[in-house]
Amino acid sequence: MEQIKIVIAGARGRMGSEAVKLVEETEHFSLVAVVDHKYDGMSLKELSGFEVDVPIYSDIDKCFFEKNPDVLIDLTTPEIGKVHTKKALENGVRPVVGTTGFSESDLAELEELTTEKGIGAIIAPNFAIGAILMMKFSQMAAKYFQDVEIIEQHHDQKLDAPSGTGLKTAEMISAVREEKQQGHPNETEILEGARGANFKGIRLHSVRLPGLIAHQEVLFGGDGQTLKLRHDSYNRASFMSGVKLAVENVMKIDLLVYGLENIIE
Amino acid sequence: MEQIKIVIAGARGRMGSEAVKLVEETEHFSLVAVVDHKYDGMSLKELSGFEVDVPIYSDIDKCFFEKNPDVLIDLTTPEIGKVHTKKALENGVRPVVGTTGFSESDLAELEELTTEKGIGAIIAPNFAIGAILMMKFSQMAAKYFQDVEIIEQHHDQKLDAPSGTGLKTAEMISAVREEKQQGHPNETEILEGARGANFKGIRLHSVRLPGLIAHQEVLFGGDGQTLKLRHDSYNRASFMSGVKLAVENVMKIDLLVYGLENIIE
Amino acid sequence: MEQIKIVIAGARGRMGSEAVKLVEETEHFSLVAVVDHKYDGMSLKELSGFEVDVPIYSDIDKCFFEKNPDVLIDLTTPEIGKVHTKKALENGVRPVVGTTGFSESDLAELEELTTEKGIGAIIAPNFAIGAILMMKFSQMAAKYFQDVEIIEQHHDQKLDAPSGTGLKTAEMISAVREEKQQGHPNETEILEGARGANFKGIRLHSVRLPGLIAHQEVLFGGDGQTLKLRHDSYNRASFMSGVKLAVENVMKIDLLVYGLENIIE
Amino acid sequence: MEQIKIVIAGARGRMGSEAVKLVEETEHFSLVAVVDHKYDGMSLKELSGFEVDVPIYSDIDKCFFEKNPDVLIDLTTPEIGKVHTKKALENGVRPVVGTTGFSESDLAELEELTTEKGIGAIIAPNFAIGAILMMKFSQMAAKYFQDVEIIEQHHDQKLDAPSGTGLKTAEMISAVREEKQQGHPNETEILEGARGANFKGIRLHSVRLPGLIAHQEVLFGGDGQTLKLRHDSYNRASFMSGVKLAVENVMKIDLLVYGLENIIE
Repeated sequence: MEQIKIVIAGARGRMGSEAVKLVEETEHFSLVAVVDHKYDGMSLKELSGFEVDVPIYSDIDKCFFEKNPDVLIDLTTPEIGKVHTKKALENGVRPVVGTTGFSESDLAELEELTTEKGIGAIIAPNFAIGAILMMKFSQMAAKYFQDVEIIEQHHDQKLDAPSGTGLKTAEMISAVREEKQQGHPNETEILEGARGANFKGIRLHSVRLPGLIAHQEVLFGGDGQTLKLRHDSYNRASFMSGVKLAVENVMKIDLLVYGLENIIE
Repeated sequence: MEQIKIVIAGARGRMGSEAVKLVEETEHFSLVAVVDHKYDGMSLKELSGFEVDVPIYSDIDKCFFEKNPDVLIDLTTPEIGKVHTKKALENGVRPVVGTTGFSESDLAELEELTTEKGIGAIIAPNFAIGAILMMKFSQMAAKYFQDVEIIEQHHDQKLDAPSGTGLKTAEMISAVREEKQQGHPNETEILEGARGANFKGIRLHSVRLPGLIAHQEVLFGGDGQTLKLRHDSYNRASFMSGVKLAVENVMKIDLLVYGLENIIE
Repeated sequence: MEQIKIVIAGARGRMGSEAVKLVEETEHFSLVAVVDHKYDGMSLKELSGFEVDVPIYSDIDKCFFEKNPDVLIDLTTPEIGKVHTKKALENGVRPVVGTTGFSESDLAELEELTTEKGIGAIIAPNFAIGAILMMKFSQMAAKYFQDVEIIEQHHDQKLDAPSGTGLKTAEMISAVREEKQQGHPNETEILEGARGANFKGIRLHSVRLPGLIAHQEVLFGGDGQTLKLRHDSYNRASFMSGVKLAVENVMKIDLLVYGLENIIE
Repeated sequence: MEQIKIVIAGARGRMGSEAVKLVEETEHFSLVAVVDHKYDGMSLKELSGFEVDVPIYSDIDKCFFEKNPDVLIDLTTPEIGKVHTKKALENGVRPVVGTTGFSESDLAELEELTTEKGIGAIIAPNFAIGAILMMKFSQMAAKYFQDVEIIEQHHDQKLDAPSGTGLKTAEMISAVREEKQQGHPNETEILEGARGANFKGIRLHSVRLPGLIAHQEVLFGGDGQTLKLRHDSYNRASFMSGVKLAVENVMKIDLLVYGLENIIE
């Protein structure tokens, strides 16, 4: 298989350091440089925790010019990610971006750039393939089961409820089913909140407990049967197979893809 | 084993007809009569669905007098159940009662009667031994895990949320732990109700879907681990092992027991 | 919606009587007759448990000729089912068949008949849509997760292990993945059988307990995550949404479809 | 609360370093020294990963003499653990030992020592309280449910099947129930091993997949219901609440306790 030359931005972050490991361990991937606002001119090897001898660039344009990579993996912040994505496309480098926060108009602009340059780009709010499959299957199952509830379970340091993945799942299901108020029309909550949050008739329940990491169940019910789809994410390694899939796919496409669910068959 | 002579009240109901089956199938149990406000003087065999030839009495005192049973299994309504229970004790018959709705003063009165007569009585809102164990174990686990949430799941014809078993479980846990607000102090519900109902800091979530029957999970979380206790009730047969246990136990005790959890070790 | 005229064979069976109920409850379905080797000339209403006034035919050709149905729902035995399916096609009636046991050559013959007549036929060993989705999703997930085990759980009256659905799931997964021996190469069973059955490297585990009905989990594992697909079948009603889907689909197709997974998108 | 003075042996190991953290974070625990065959005379602070300034002793007797601790937490190897436990008791220090491999005669000797010295000792093969509760509850539930199967799930680097916890659970259940062959008497394995391992009639199933950590389900079945007890262990932090409980309890007892299940009520 032909080597894919890769630059990583955000290598010092928790996701980024996993990505360095992934590229190192994948035979047909080569890490050629990292982009960082600090440590310009040093080798990644000089930073604690890394053993790969690749140069660090603070100037991303210079990096692209000198190293001529195929793909940029960007795992920085929304603000920096936007700038990097645009610069990558302008330099003919295919971006794989794990940051969120792109607006509709950001995406429209990037889409235009991919068309103009004739190269692919992938932006994914979630790289855990298991979570992507759970959401995709949920959408498919919703055609056959009208009733569904979502129970997502996270550690008790999480601030927002429901989780982003929970909401995304409810949105994807709602996109393919007619809105339906579930449960008995006359049901009453003896204790307020028992029936959870209501998103277009779909109920969402957020469990928060110490010990938990990131888990979600999507439960469909029909006559005499239930179908449960459950994803458990135990650590950040769970994102890496998705990053790998994205890198391999971004080489084959010539358009902007938003969300890994759109490259999964 | 010595035969236990049994009278059943409520035999035509759904629980009651299961109880008839149970008594028939248990070697050391003998059904000697049924009590019913209708069909006085007929045989149970004459009613559709039954094949047991025992007399039907509308007058419970007469039934006790003529048949001299050891135990009354009462599966009627709260109102009738109260009257039957009292009459049983007055006649020296040990009651096993599956109806709810006894007030504190009702129970106090019955307790006095058991003491006076020197015989046992068991009143149980729930006869499913698996559910009883789930609640009992939850109470035990709460000593070691401060954080717990309850997810109960029922068919979508159920009107009240949370379920009686869900609330009972939360009460039993609360009885042994200091009240604690769970989750992050700054957590916020993006969609109202996501974090469920709040009973003294314990969160309860009620799932309602067609296909479901009666299920409950009690999930405890601690450092690096979770403990889940789950009961699934698939049909009314699930109550019968509890009724059997109660009949066997009521013969050995000389006081009033409220709740099967108190005869389970 | 246009009415679909339906004949049911096997109406007195457990699946068949559910099918009668389904057809009655579905607005655009009309039951026009049932086929039975007994009770020729009587009305279904005369048989205990039924309230629908449609004629019973022992001669299926005569039934088709006089009633001119659109669809035959056949829920008889494999032997009778084969004969009925062929006769239906020959008479221009679209068969929806829930019996198994068709050989390759049977299917080839039936396929030819559908082409010749230009009408559709659906043969499905399993009508529980949730189970079909579980199998289909398992096949899709296997492209992204190389490691998978199947845990199926049934009541303890079941004689064969693994279940038919368990084996079918393993076959469908194997069809899309390279054979792989899972687990550690040096793993050892301290107690024989602990690692379950081995189907082309996929491990299958069969749990048999009283109380259980029919349940299956397909568990995929990858770096830092797992994906679980679980189907619970609680009673025969679970098959009816699949029968309904099949009837609606058989009207739109002009070929033989084997397995509901092939009409689900 | 009175301070408990603690010495840790095995502090550089993975469990040991968690124990150092635990002692540091617990208000009424004081770490006074660590025992290590290396680094005698240095401070723990000088070793990478630690920030606690306590002396390191290679001579455990000298450590006990100079520091006069209340408790020794030993998380070394079976061989060293045995020696340390004995020396602790001889020096009047209460041992909490997380190593396995004590023989019946080792335990008898240690029991004698605790009696002689009038102090407590706790030896625990497993410190995860959730796992202990799962086993204890399983034993209790087995009195009411005769049929049970165990499904344990671990990462695919694990060599032995079933797991130690799986076997221990089966043993504890067997201790309180009559041996019973479960499943249908005529059941047959179409694929060998499907029904799992057989321990006195209890079936054990071992799932091994990448991504999994350490999980176990104990599933009880009875008429119309099932009861499931599940423990998920996500990381080594899960052992620390058990170590804490053991330290607190060892101060109150004057005998040898083997297994945390015996100090849990």
